Amino acid sequence: MSCTVAIFGPGLLGGSLLLALRKRQPSTRLRAWARRPEALGPIREKGLADFSDTDPSAVAAGADLVVLCTPVGAMAGLVEQITPSLSPQSIVTDVGSVKAPVHHAIAPLAQGKFSWLGSHPMAGSEQSGLAAAREDLFDGSLTILTPVPATPEATVTSLRSFWESVGSRTITCAPTEHDRRVAAISHLPHLLAAILVNAADADARAVAGPGFRDVTRIAAGPAGMWTEILLENKEAVLLALDALEAGSREARQALAQGNAAEITTLLHKACQARRSLS
Amino acid sequence: MSCTVAIFGPGLLGGSLLLALRKRQPSTRLRAWARRPEALGPIREKGLADFSDTDPSAVAAGADLVVLCTPVGAMAGLVEQITPSLSPQSIVTDVGSVKAPVHHAIAPLAQGKFSWLGSHPMAGSEQSGLAAAREDLFDGSLTILTPVPATPEATVTSLRSFWESVGSRTITCAPTEHDRRVAAISHLPHLLAAILVNAADADARAVAGPGFRDVTRIAAGPAGMWTEILLENKEAVLLALDALEAGSREARQALAQGNAAEITTLLHKACQARRSLS
Repeated sequence: MSCTVAIFGPGLLGGSLLLALRKRQPSTRLRAWARRPEALGPIREKGLADFSDTDPSAVAAGADLVVLCTPVGAMAGLVEQITPSLSPQSIVTDVGSVKAPVHHAIAPLAQGKFSWLGSHPMAGSEQSGLAAAREDLFDGSLTILTPVPATPEATVTSLRSFWESVGSRTITCAPTEHDRRVAAISHLPHLLAAILVNAADADARAVAGPGFRDVTRIAAGPAGMWTEILLENKEAVLLALDALEAGSREARQALAQGNAAEITTLLHKACQARRSLS
Repeated sequence: MSCTVAIFGPGLLGGSLLLALRKRQPSTRLRAWARRPEALGPIREKGLADFSDTDPSAVAAGADLVVLCTPVGAMAGLVEQITPSLSPQSIVTDVGSVKAPVHHAIAPLAQGKFSWLGSHPMAGSEQSGLAAAREDLFDGSLTILTPVPATPEATVTSLRSFWESVGSRTITCAPTEHDRRVAAISHLPHLLAAILVNAADADARAVAGPGFRDVTRIAAGPAGMWTEILLENKEAVLLALDALEAGSREARQALAQGNAAEITTLLHKACQARRSLS
């Protein structure tokens, strides 16, 4: 376990990390960076960090672990700014929902100056911002670490311990494989949930029951953040959309032909797979 | 309120009606029909009906209200069998998820021999069968009644009272309009949830979080029942699928072009509409 952790971007995930670490690892020294000075107010009022600032280098100084919780597009620029404050023993990770683009942007900056390994804690809610942060956000969650062959085993071990210390399980897979999986189980479902909401007019939505609310719950998530995620992972999302459209064409044909056996097979396969999830 | 109610098909909805009426309307006399004698065992053991049998005519005799809770395909045949036991004052309704086909099958059988008005209580769960029945299943639910211009106002009023007596709110709309609305908020979402599950392989499903579980929860519903619903409402489902595919094409194009503004507009519109639901 690192003893000084710097959190960059105290929103839902970054703020929840501060809360969880304060509660579960009281001896860990916490540092927090936010772009806007106003965002530091609540951090200071609640005593969530031992040091907080808008200067990236000042916050990174002495950190054993830096966790980037900013939008994915801002990460590489921040890392360039803090590299002089880091040591070869420092670990940098992030919490972005897309891993290959982040890996390709940050790995070349490491070069022995710090150790880099991406993380994706699969926790969150349709809310965002520090106000929605919770100390138990990671309890029972799954965090995917995305090492490549060059990643030192010690970095993987340290980062596993970190995520386990805030209540998360961990698994590892390559960055591109991560992006393929999350396109199928998160990004495409989000896009489709939004399309489903938009395809239902107000009269239809007025009779929506719990089923529609479940299917479309994620569509209430912040539009700007999800636009960025979808665009960052667009190759994998487009491939997942191909698979979905192929399934949709088969279902349409079976429906138009009144082919009950084929529809039942489709629904039964999904029913079995879905029941095995919970 | 009717004082003798006959429930045909004591599954999740029929069984929940028996439980709700026993609890909230103890003076109502309850009659229950099931196709298979074994299905009557639990009804009798739990004292859920004053009379139960596998003979439709015997169960319908003397009923002020008959509620058909069988599969939609079995309803017209049952109504033909019980018509001689009914009076012009008897009301026949159903709980089917599709209204135009049921209306077209049953309305011609009424002809002054009984009063017919379709109902769709929008309650249920991914479970089915009497074992899943709950006395509070209709609490806070919405029931759509589907009168046509020829439906007597008194029948609408009686049936509204009946559904309100088990805890449901009611609205009315024409059978075809009902089918269009539920295709958009129930049937198409169900089909898509199943296609989404099938499009994600086991590795992807292994990292699924709460979002995927929400989106796909309804896909755990009974395949046979949903095949029947989708086929009964296939015209409206195919139209809803057209609307969805148009939305999907727009999203695909915006994504491929990296058009952030258009994706944000799509997601923002859905976000606003979804937030207004809850």
